[in-house]
Amino acid sequence: MDIRTSPFRLRIEKVQEALKARGLAALLVPSSDPHLSEYLPERWQGRQWLSGFTGSMGTLAIARDRAAVFADSRYWVQAEKELRDSGIELVKIPTGTATHHVQWLADVAKAGETVGVDGDVLGLASAHHLRTALERAGIRLDTSVDLLADVWPDRPALPAATVYEHREPQAPLPRAAKLAQVRESFLRQGATHHFVSTVDDIAWLFNLRGSDVSYNPVFLAHALIDAHGATLFVGEAKVGTELQARLEADGVKLAPYAQARAALAALPAGASLLIDPRRVTLGLRQSVPAGVTLIESINPSTLLKSRKSEAEARHIREAMAQDGAAMCEFYAWFEQALGRERITELTIDEKLSAARARRPGFVGLSFSTIAGFNANGAMPHYRATPESHAVIEGDGLLLIDSGAQYLGGTTDITRVWPIGTITAAHRRDYTLVLRGTIALSRTRFPRGTLSPMIDAIARVPLWEQGLDYGHGTGHGVGYFLNVHEGPQSISKVIPEPTMAMEPGMITSIEPGLYRPGQWGIRIENLVLNVPAVTPENGAFGEFLEFETLTLCPIDTRCIERGLLRADEIDWLNRYHTVVRERLAPLVTGDALAWLEARTQAL
Amino acid sequence: MDIRTSPFRLRIEKVQEALKARGLAALLVPSSDPHLSEYLPERWQGRQWLSGFTGSMGTLAIARDRAAVFADSRYWVQAEKELRDSGIELVKIPTGTATHHVQWLADVAKAGETVGVDGDVLGLASAHHLRTALERAGIRLDTSVDLLADVWPDRPALPAATVYEHREPQAPLPRAAKLAQVRESFLRQGATHHFVSTVDDIAWLFNLRGSDVSYNPVFLAHALIDAHGATLFVGEAKVGTELQARLEADGVKLAPYAQARAALAALPAGASLLIDPRRVTLGLRQSVPAGVTLIESINPSTLLKSRKSEAEARHIREAMAQDGAAMCEFYAWFEQALGRERITELTIDEKLSAARARRPGFVGLSFSTIAGFNANGAMPHYRATPESHAVIEGDGLLLIDSGAQYLGGTTDITRVWPIGTITAAHRRDYTLVLRGTIALSRTRFPRGTLSPMIDAIARVPLWEQGLDYGHGTGHGVGYFLNVHEGPQSISKVIPEPTMAMEPGMITSIEPGLYRPGQWGIRIENLVLNVPAVTPENGAFGEFLEFETLTLCPIDTRCIERGLLRADEIDWLNRYHTVVRERLAPLVTGDALAWLEARTQAL
Repeated sequence: MDIRTSPFRLRIEKVQEALKARGLAALLVPSSDPHLSEYLPERWQGRQWLSGFTGSMGTLAIARDRAAVFADSRYWVQAEKELRDSGIELVKIPTGTATHHVQWLADVAKAGETVGVDGDVLGLASAHHLRTALERAGIRLDTSVDLLADVWPDRPALPAATVYEHREPQAPLPRAAKLAQVRESFLRQGATHHFVSTVDDIAWLFNLRGSDVSYNPVFLAHALIDAHGATLFVGEAKVGTELQARLEADGVKLAPYAQARAALAALPAGASLLIDPRRVTLGLRQSVPAGVTLIESINPSTLLKSRKSEAEARHIREAMAQDGAAMCEFYAWFEQALGRERITELTIDEKLSAARARRPGFVGLSFSTIAGFNANGAMPHYRATPESHAVIEGDGLLLIDSGAQYLGGTTDITRVWPIGTITAAHRRDYTLVLRGTIALSRTRFPRGTLSPMIDAIARVPLWEQGLDYGHGTGHGVGYFLNVHEGPQSISKVIPEPTMAMEPGMITSIEPGLYRPGQWGIRIENLVLNVPAVTPENGAFGEFLEFETLTLCPIDTRCIERGLLRADEIDWLNRYHTVVRERLAPLVTGDALAWLEARTQAL
Repeated sequence: MDIRTSPFRLRIEKVQEALKARGLAALLVPSSDPHLSEYLPERWQGRQWLSGFTGSMGTLAIARDRAAVFADSRYWVQAEKELRDSGIELVKIPTGTATHHVQWLADVAKAGETVGVDGDVLGLASAHHLRTALERAGIRLDTSVDLLADVWPDRPALPAATVYEHREPQAPLPRAAKLAQVRESFLRQGATHHFVSTVDDIAWLFNLRGSDVSYNPVFLAHALIDAHGATLFVGEAKVGTELQARLEADGVKLAPYAQARAALAALPAGASLLIDPRRVTLGLRQSVPAGVTLIESINPSTLLKSRKSEAEARHIREAMAQDGAAMCEFYAWFEQALGRERITELTIDEKLSAARARRPGFVGLSFSTIAGFNANGAMPHYRATPESHAVIEGDGLLLIDSGAQYLGGTTDITRVWPIGTITAAHRRDYTLVLRGTIALSRTRFPRGTLSPMIDAIARVPLWEQGLDYGHGTGHGVGYFLNVHEGPQSISKVIPEPTMAMEPGMITSIEPGLYRPGQWGIRIENLVLNVPAVTPENGAFGEFLEFETLTLCPIDTRCIERGLLRADEIDWLNRYHTVVRERLAPLVTGDALAWLEARTQAL
């Protein structure tokens, strides 16, 4: 391609002209939307439209004479390729950091100059950090700059998908009861009103679901709740009249999506508003009149929805069994087909998704399937594309990380399967990762333990050999909701009090090991926090343990038996007994035979 | 005692009169001094003098009509006894918290009123927290209130002990080189000056030691360092003329202790001063003129001194061997004397201290010996007194936590010994704690791991059984300096970047288990961070492992063998082989025989 004709180069130039026209030194384009969601509606994929970089995370910063994309190691190969002719520089940042662009902006702007950003897509906490850092360098931050409106002629409209109800039996707690719980919490904290922007909180709170973005069954909305009722700001025509009536019966009024800001602006003097600084944008916060007291605290719904009820847990166990049965069907087909027909990483996605889609309660995938053979498996966020994918042939390891949304729960599972002949090095790596999965899965811990504090337990077997993995050990998981949903996180992040482990939370356990250019291993189950009945019967306080929810064989042919201790083999054998008993009634024929074979005791 | 005559009641009343006279609502009396030290010179033991409560930690707050001491569970029994006739209420707070008194003050004072505190003994970070919390309730904080000066007629003077030099070979790095390292650090951070108040930092930096407080070989001083020289503010007559001359030759001037504040006040406009907000008082910070830029950062010396050099490590290993030899001599005597002569917890302290005092390089104890038999061992900070101590007789467990200062290092060791016949319950508890000690001792981890993130590894064997301990797993240890000396800490505290594990750090590993009224167990070794040579040779980054420094048998008669895995028995046998080889040359006769017997393979 001729450099001059890159559409992204032209788009960046258009922004740079606008910067000059408005007297701005630079523009920050974060990858975020007014709801601070993980998956962005197309309308807010401005970073991608401007730069051409399609990674799921990454920040774009544009100065008058240069531009840069900031991305971590997961995206370097992809970003280098996609940014090639754009004239945009790639700044490689360490995983888990998000401050390099701030330094870049402070470097390109001079003291006295102004940097622009759209405050409507900037979290309150990030905005505070950005403003403080720039002001330290004498640079002003203007948060009212949405240049996308100027330069993006065919900018996509708001998604118009229908909102539907998450009903009984899968939604056991009525929305009125959930609203009452949230109300009790914010009133107790001294607030008269509570505003929610996060779409998973809203979906949970109102027992509603949607399909405005990929994978997460959510819809764009804000909500304002007071002591008596609630208003849901949602695209008109997205909620049918029957559902509207049902909502109204529960004290929930509907208002146009765009009126959320005006509703905040109309809050009466003397009101006190609870908002979550991590979960509300600066733009919305700035709409709040001066006479309103702000109470900054985590959304009550974020804590409430993280603790699944026993009624929900029963549906989740059923969804896990259906998901495991789909895995059996897929693997049974895969092992028979391998060597007979051409199978690629894309075929795997198709066949596995089809097996899941046949299961009762299936709604969709919970994230984009990662099927990575050998070197592709060494990229933790790899995604095969029609242009670039591997054929499954020869020898090595196949990593499949996949999951689905069911009406009764969200699944997320990673397994590694041997292809052809594998080596002692494969076996050793696999067994060490498995030891990490087992070590954490069987851990008991005091209720209230801050989740990051148990991260190391899964790493010990790898650390012992000088090995490690660059991602967290586990993320919280929603209930027919987001597959990444806190507040808990088993990782190296700095713990906060809201990350305390409580009964009913669901978290992944997924240690891994990645040898770039060679192979990747990750063994992932979802686990539920349940009360532990210990020999001490509570004399030392309440303890929790993990109930492993995920039901699917863990390959035993990749195991180097000599590296497992007897108690680890016991754990694995007991797990496989449960898997066999729970899945056998749900599969037949080849899939049943496969299940029997792959759950044999080691 | 007649309630009316309690001296503490009278002292509190005197303070309350002074409060009224000055128009204050309340006074806060923290347990701290101008250096924020762990051990307070008598002059700053005002909380103890006013209340009668002698615990090593605890806060006193006095309102016009009531007073309260805030202490955690370690001190409840003691505090209830000591406060009995004082009219002072005991507020029981959870271990590790230090904010309950703030709420108490906010409750007793009305909006518009003023609470007083002596800013000269209040850390900058604590002062900030206190002021913010009170201001939120509309209460003013006056930090210029030292009522002790008014009410304490015979208040002790400043300690006058002599300052001496820590010399070669035990102090391998000259003070000029240390000053250069610190100077390089603060200049690189943009500071022209650096002020240090913490006495361990000063002792390390200038290769000086003292005996102004118990156990920590330090002396009261502040230091101001600039690009060219340093001034040590220290009591006149404490430094001999010869040492003065040696200091001057290294660019260190002496100035009277009380002039530190004036020196800060005299800093030139345009200067920039690096201070550590955790390690400088509000009073000193307030002396800094407005024209001086403050750079708040951890004291460079705190990081530098935490990383012991290889030359220092050689001396530490020798000190550990001498300390272990003293333990052998003590235990050999103890086992022979038990049942033949009357042995109490106090006798143990005497005999053990005497054995240590005979060892080369011994300077003093590094903390007050904890010898706790049965129920006394269940109090982690127990101290036997002439009035209250146990006789070692009958059956049970004897816990001894002790340590010493040597010119070449600081020791801290806990062992538990069986007395008479012990039960299966004793053995089980002991073995579970030992498994925790072993699990963490053998852990490898990436260099830079935040120390609190590995705390759980020692707890896993206890957690599995629904057991836990209420203290941290390990504290940093100084080099012939404080036995509690960070910045690292293996505990449940929220990690900070300065707590990263680096080569050369020394930390304790001391899981425990306490059954109130029955027995306590703790097994403690000191360990050194050393580079780990892993099979991967650095492909996954640098790894560290622990070299166990402490050399002393771990009792094997208390072990329930069936609860130990083969790899744990291997670890213990290898440890005992090292202990035997290293200590045998240092002991003779009964002690040697005892060493041989107690290091037999399991």
